[in-house]
Amino acid sequence: MVYLWSGRFAGNFSPLAEKFTSSLGIDRRLGLFDVRGSMAHVRMLGRQKIIPAREARILLTGLRKIKTELEKGSFQFQEHDEDIHSAIERRLVELTGKIGEKLHTARSRNDQVVLDEKLFLKEAVPEMLRQIRKLQLVLVQTAEANRCVIMPAYTHLQPAQPVLLAHHLLAYVEMLERDCGRLNDGLARSDELPLGVAACAGTTLPIDRHKVAAELGFKRISRNSLDTVSDRDFIVEIVFGCALTMIHLSRLAEDLILWSTQEFRFIDLPEQFCTGSSIMPQKKNPDVLELIRGRAAVAAAAVTGLLSLMKGLPLAYNRDLQEDKHFLFEVIDLTVSSVEVMAALLPGVVFHRERMARAAQEGFSLATDIAEYLVEKGVPFREAHRICAGIVRHCLQTGADLKTLSLSSYRSFSPVFEADLLPRLSLRSSVCRRRAIGGTSPVWVTRQLNQWKKTLKSSATVP
Amino acid sequence: MVYLWSGRFAGNFSPLAEKFTSSLGIDRRLGLFDVRGSMAHVRMLGRQKIIPAREARILLTGLRKIKTELEKGSFQFQEHDEDIHSAIERRLVELTGKIGEKLHTARSRNDQVVLDEKLFLKEAVPEMLRQIRKLQLVLVQTAEANRCVIMPAYTHLQPAQPVLLAHHLLAYVEMLERDCGRLNDGLARSDELPLGVAACAGTTLPIDRHKVAAELGFKRISRNSLDTVSDRDFIVEIVFGCALTMIHLSRLAEDLILWSTQEFRFIDLPEQFCTGSSIMPQKKNPDVLELIRGRAAVAAAAVTGLLSLMKGLPLAYNRDLQEDKHFLFEVIDLTVSSVEVMAALLPGVVFHRERMARAAQEGFSLATDIAEYLVEKGVPFREAHRICAGIVRHCLQTGADLKTLSLSSYRSFSPVFEADLLPRLSLRSSVCRRRAIGGTSPVWVTRQLNQWKKTLKSSATVP
Amino acid sequence: MVYLWSGRFAGNFSPLAEKFTSSLGIDRRLGLFDVRGSMAHVRMLGRQKIIPAREARILLTGLRKIKTELEKGSFQFQEHDEDIHSAIERRLVELTGKIGEKLHTARSRNDQVVLDEKLFLKEAVPEMLRQIRKLQLVLVQTAEANRCVIMPAYTHLQPAQPVLLAHHLLAYVEMLERDCGRLNDGLARSDELPLGVAACAGTTLPIDRHKVAAELGFKRISRNSLDTVSDRDFIVEIVFGCALTMIHLSRLAEDLILWSTQEFRFIDLPEQFCTGSSIMPQKKNPDVLELIRGRAAVAAAAVTGLLSLMKGLPLAYNRDLQEDKHFLFEVIDLTVSSVEVMAALLPGVVFHRERMARAAQEGFSLATDIAEYLVEKGVPFREAHRICAGIVRHCLQTGADLKTLSLSSYRSFSPVFEADLLPRLSLRSSVCRRRAIGGTSPVWVTRQLNQWKKTLKSSATVP
Amino acid sequence: MVYLWSGRFAGNFSPLAEKFTSSLGIDRRLGLFDVRGSMAHVRMLGRQKIIPAREARILLTGLRKIKTELEKGSFQFQEHDEDIHSAIERRLVELTGKIGEKLHTARSRNDQVVLDEKLFLKEAVPEMLRQIRKLQLVLVQTAEANRCVIMPAYTHLQPAQPVLLAHHLLAYVEMLERDCGRLNDGLARSDELPLGVAACAGTTLPIDRHKVAAELGFKRISRNSLDTVSDRDFIVEIVFGCALTMIHLSRLAEDLILWSTQEFRFIDLPEQFCTGSSIMPQKKNPDVLELIRGRAAVAAAAVTGLLSLMKGLPLAYNRDLQEDKHFLFEVIDLTVSSVEVMAALLPGVVFHRERMARAAQEGFSLATDIAEYLVEKGVPFREAHRICAGIVRHCLQTGADLKTLSLSSYRSFSPVFEADLLPRLSLRSSVCRRRAIGGTSPVWVTRQLNQWKKTLKSSATVP
Repeated sequence: MVYLWSGRFAGNFSPLAEKFTSSLGIDRRLGLFDVRGSMAHVRMLGRQKIIPAREARILLTGLRKIKTELEKGSFQFQEHDEDIHSAIERRLVELTGKIGEKLHTARSRNDQVVLDEKLFLKEAVPEMLRQIRKLQLVLVQTAEANRCVIMPAYTHLQPAQPVLLAHHLLAYVEMLERDCGRLNDGLARSDELPLGVAACAGTTLPIDRHKVAAELGFKRISRNSLDTVSDRDFIVEIVFGCALTMIHLSRLAEDLILWSTQEFRFIDLPEQFCTGSSIMPQKKNPDVLELIRGRAAVAAAAVTGLLSLMKGLPLAYNRDLQEDKHFLFEVIDLTVSSVEVMAALLPGVVFHRERMARAAQEGFSLATDIAEYLVEKGVPFREAHRICAGIVRHCLQTGADLKTLSLSSYRSFSPVFEADLLPRLSLRSSVCRRRAIGGTSPVWVTRQLNQWKKTLKSSATVP
Repeated sequence: MVYLWSGRFAGNFSPLAEKFTSSLGIDRRLGLFDVRGSMAHVRMLGRQKIIPAREARILLTGLRKIKTELEKGSFQFQEHDEDIHSAIERRLVELTGKIGEKLHTARSRNDQVVLDEKLFLKEAVPEMLRQIRKLQLVLVQTAEANRCVIMPAYTHLQPAQPVLLAHHLLAYVEMLERDCGRLNDGLARSDELPLGVAACAGTTLPIDRHKVAAELGFKRISRNSLDTVSDRDFIVEIVFGCALTMIHLSRLAEDLILWSTQEFRFIDLPEQFCTGSSIMPQKKNPDVLELIRGRAAVAAAAVTGLLSLMKGLPLAYNRDLQEDKHFLFEVIDLTVSSVEVMAALLPGVVFHRERMARAAQEGFSLATDIAEYLVEKGVPFREAHRICAGIVRHCLQTGADLKTLSLSSYRSFSPVFEADLLPRLSLRSSVCRRRAIGGTSPVWVTRQLNQWKKTLKSSATVP
Repeated sequence: MVYLWSGRFAGNFSPLAEKFTSSLGIDRRLGLFDVRGSMAHVRMLGRQKIIPAREARILLTGLRKIKTELEKGSFQFQEHDEDIHSAIERRLVELTGKIGEKLHTARSRNDQVVLDEKLFLKEAVPEMLRQIRKLQLVLVQTAEANRCVIMPAYTHLQPAQPVLLAHHLLAYVEMLERDCGRLNDGLARSDELPLGVAACAGTTLPIDRHKVAAELGFKRISRNSLDTVSDRDFIVEIVFGCALTMIHLSRLAEDLILWSTQEFRFIDLPEQFCTGSSIMPQKKNPDVLELIRGRAAVAAAAVTGLLSLMKGLPLAYNRDLQEDKHFLFEVIDLTVSSVEVMAALLPGVVFHRERMARAAQEGFSLATDIAEYLVEKGVPFREAHRICAGIVRHCLQTGADLKTLSLSSYRSFSPVFEADLLPRLSLRSSVCRRRAIGGTSPVWVTRQLNQWKKTLKSSATVP
Repeated sequence: MVYLWSGRFAGNFSPLAEKFTSSLGIDRRLGLFDVRGSMAHVRMLGRQKIIPAREARILLTGLRKIKTELEKGSFQFQEHDEDIHSAIERRLVELTGKIGEKLHTARSRNDQVVLDEKLFLKEAVPEMLRQIRKLQLVLVQTAEANRCVIMPAYTHLQPAQPVLLAHHLLAYVEMLERDCGRLNDGLARSDELPLGVAACAGTTLPIDRHKVAAELGFKRISRNSLDTVSDRDFIVEIVFGCALTMIHLSRLAEDLILWSTQEFRFIDLPEQFCTGSSIMPQKKNPDVLELIRGRAAVAAAAVTGLLSLMKGLPLAYNRDLQEDKHFLFEVIDLTVSSVEVMAALLPGVVFHRERMARAAQEGFSLATDIAEYLVEKGVPFREAHRICAGIVRHCLQTGADLKTLSLSSYRSFSPVFEADLLPRLSLRSSVCRRRAIGGTSPVWVTRQLNQWKKTLKSSATVP
């Protein structure tokens, strides 16, 4: 069998090795990006007179045909195609004969594959960002639609203090906002044309990298050929960004799984996003959410894998790096689909506001309000804490709760308590009083909702 | 669309969710194991009169047909098949009508999938062990064929002491031996029939698990239904065993990559296992070895992923666990193929014994022999170490080496040196004197080679 | 500054490098093991006449003194001690003068550190196993003390079927049993004396490794010097075993955290193992359990770290391996303390059996029993599943439940239902009927409890 | 024992649990940041009249004293101090009595610890960046000092093409530049004051977060209390940035380890950064570099650990998060020290330019130049590649090399070769001709050196 590189070899490539090294199963996904890169490359070769203009045109016609074949799914891969690059060059030679053998002038697969991956990311990341933006919007809308719902905030999964459900949901909007920032930063950092550094040292031919960069939409041009072909930072950084996004989704999934248990019963999940059991007829399971949580582990593992892959590799390109695509595609796909399915699921969630309020009522979640009441009256906080703790212990022993305890009982713990305590003992009051920036008061939360709607609207129109 | 579990649901399953939760792309690989498990299950149901014997026979006929379809590749999957279990049950109902609806009696997908995975491992692990044994044998044969080759042992990649190449290769036989032990232990630990625990609590129907275990070749029967459906130890333990095997292969790959550099030039790699460059005509690259090294990172990442997947999951089954197969198949495949390709590559390696010997000669690798000579004459080791270090410094300054330094020069460092030092100053002598168990002396190494040949021959005949 | 190895060097070791490479902060923990290994080594050197018997006795006296100093905490480390081995040799020379310089005869730190680590594991792993056995016993005792408590088994955190709490707890006994097996296998696999292979090639001095192995209690002797000094399988295997144990504990922790929420309220956690909040006076948080869960992540990360550390290292010893102890000690410590604290916490847990039973009653957890009832009457399981699903939907719409639905209502879904259905509609009946091996029936569970008590009692007496 | 939160508890905290949950061993490092945060908090409390101005002054005096004690190391920790926050509050109460009990007003440890960590990062990250900048400068200076040295660029560790050593070193400057960008982005993204959100819901007291933000130097104020206390993105992002930096250093370390082998002998490492062997007198080992490589694995493992820690945690704060500091401090420390030691080591490296040039000469590294020569003459690249491959095979068979092969021999492979080929056959010519952006030509590399010197000088003056 003849490969791009067979010339120097006397013997044949082992079929076992061929199978072991082939990356076509994975990198065929880069086909259209590869063609786009080749077209820009050929145009430049023509303009620079590295190949005659006429031949450049012929090559472009051939590449356009290949593009169509790839789009239509009619491109015929062959048994010995090693990778997408070889397959396309092979096909181009079939289509254009000898002239096709000029395609790879001033280029190596080492810079070509980085180009393909970067072109892929230039499409995939913005698409992912759009999906994340959509999910943020869904969260905001869900928050707005349930603006008055009060629930317990949990710490250590024990009721802590009453908060607005909207406030809880907006926490995830914040996380996703950081995710967008992180993915954008990663994309911007790698916005450098790699093509033109060839194998690792550059080329002696008079290429013009500016033109290629402009045509392919790169902001900058890579400055060091050795770095360019051996760098996979741009992949691990995006994969890390995805992994963290998935961690955030896994937390939201966990919240929803908990809330939809029979025991919490804060929400009903939409049936269209639940599955049943092959044996238990009554089951309605949050499989989608569990898979999101599970796939967060898959994404995190990919970060590990990529870091371990790169560790201790000498410069410049080493074949180990081929495994990068394995991780990249997997993580991009699972992140996008998780974001998407979460955005589709959320609008169907039914919130049981009474159950949520009742849960907030229980668990002494107003104890901190009472302590802060005492602080306002001049009691040192630590002492106020002890007084309230005593009240809680008393309630636990007597079965009373903070709401129903009489003022005189309160006063038996501290004479500082007065009648103005009583209006404090409501969820609504508790929530409304947490007015400082970042707190759960309706005033602040509404401001945030409005702010987010504005931001997300404007970001949605961005390409 | 109707799923196995649709009965309870009013609405339709979201196409997005269907796609998101489908595992057919991955678990179709379990098809034949699923059928085998179902056949054993049906026979038991019949024998226990849970279903009539006649119906059991009809089900078995249907399952046999499905088996044939799967083997031939003619089994038709349908768009809405959720997983391999559903697909097969769906097909069985097509083939046998109403009777097919009895297949899933006293069974859940929760125990079924564990069964399928365990049946898969009962085939895959022994096959992997056979491949590892083969690689061990190749290492032993390569060692034997190069029995007299001396090379420098390295620590910190700096020449340390002369050793036999055979000794170096046998180090990998040891590692792989531990790998076999580990994989065997893992397989033995999980040799428990899971089928029969149903969803998570067992079944009220009068099943007989002993019969099923016997038919499917399980040594024991799982003792706790909740554990049985939520346990994935048996997967992570095997994946870990594979990962460690891959780490060992990565070290061997690294050795061979180094040895085949222009700078070491200890070996020539067989051309059939090297590739060239799309741009640089002279290249002969050890891609296969680099990919083995890289895939060790992929395998290690899978261990991480599985552990993170299981962390903090409440009992019993949770859908997160579906991602187990993703990691399992990937790692089994990459390990088997790496072992196989390494075993195919090694016999073609050409060892340049003069280059290896020369490298051992350089680097003062006999310095420890000289220090031990002094010890034999009664010099405290630490002092002997200092004396020899002084000699080395002297050589470095003067360009001399240990072999050519005159006896009188030696004596200028210590009067203890006598003429009997000189025969010590050869690689051969150094190697031959390291006679203790585990040392590199030819006597010991030959004994090891013979021992391994015997062991590996006998293990090869084991199924 | 003079180091063990300074002889060859003209200049001084950089203080920065000294600090960067020092391992004393971590490996001082190996002090007593190091001394024990040195004593065995010295005895052998004496017996083999590699050093005079008289000097061996002097060295032993010195080592005994050092042992006492280490035990008492009076051993004085010095600023430039690189590691525990150097520190002890330095001290021995202080104590015994020139004779102390003979300690390191026929030995390298490369084999010495492996010895120390293995001696450490020979103590640490059995101690860990004892703790795990104790936890298993506590689980069994807790199960027995609450033998009649029925709770819902969950799949997907949705109620699945009624099970005995004892059955749920025994699931963890099974997991821990596998953990013990795994740790034991790992320890057995590494039960090979490393000492005697010196730097990497063995020694020319007439050592006797059998004697050392016998004295230090090793079953076998390592067979390949290169493997011996570069192998860290024995560490990563134990760390992996710990990580999996921690994963199991993290699942138990998650169960308990959930059960102790206000919403589940299945249990009260013992106050002695809960903490409060610095601000919220009412809080009683399951911090201990959360930390166990979190530390499972730390343990899993260590597996990753060790695999990545070893990946692609050429033979034999490389300094990278120094980081092994970092992971080893951390993981051993966190595992032992987690097991211990879990065993201390469990006996204080108060189970609210009515809450648990009520939760099992809700959620239609008997639906599978009803389907299996129909199967007994000859209805194909898949049809029975659909009928029951219909009943569940009916209940959901009407607010009825399976227990209170009238027989005639049942019959409106299938005429197969008869009066013998009704006794089936109790948790007790459901649990009792799941009699097959591994099911939750009291008969089986009691048998298991007895079995475990016997096993654990006998294993407890093992050293 | 009395803890901050003991009020509600009847019993005593288990000593086992106390030990298990204590974080003082790790978080004491945050002491000064904790005091700084408390001082800003107290000033705000006073200004807002939440506590009387006089009391605020007393608290500040106390805090100042504690600051001094911490700085001097005279601060006395006590056995039952749970964490640094409790210890400082305990001490403040000792110093100021009842007034000290007002410190924790409108604050929780949940927001306090995030503040401390962020203040820590605001110091640690810029310090790390300074160290990285210094290393970049050292790389640039080393490149400049060896501006004319030519070496082979490697791909797959096989010689590829001649490049300037300076170009190779600048590849690392690029990597480190991305690292700085990444760390800066991470720091900027988290530049939000967390203090003021209290436990998770905000506070009812009239705090002013703007003032605190201004005093402590935060650009923004966190907007969601639930997110604020449960977020650890800011830690994992920095740890990831460090891990990637370490991966880059591990690659540089690998290059240097290889180059300093006896076989490459491209460089001599400075003795001050090498160690010897306890047994082999001749050894000079690159331990520092190996440890850098190994610690890259430790850093990568921390990323894994943190992601796994956070996965699936419900909102808001859970105690699992305590383990974040464990990873954070470890990774910051190992990264800073690795960068520092690398910068100290590099200036002492001696480059053997003849060895490097000779290595570049061998291995047919000019083959691509010859192919590109043919391309200039109109030969399609793929054909040129084949012709050159044929020439290489011929050389391999005959022992010739590209430099010494006669023109007529060249012409026997292709008549296109003419006399103008010959001047191409030099390393110098090859390097000089790779003039495109990013290539290894001296013109480009010099431009880069100048550019970097300017950039690094200006960044050095930045705080």
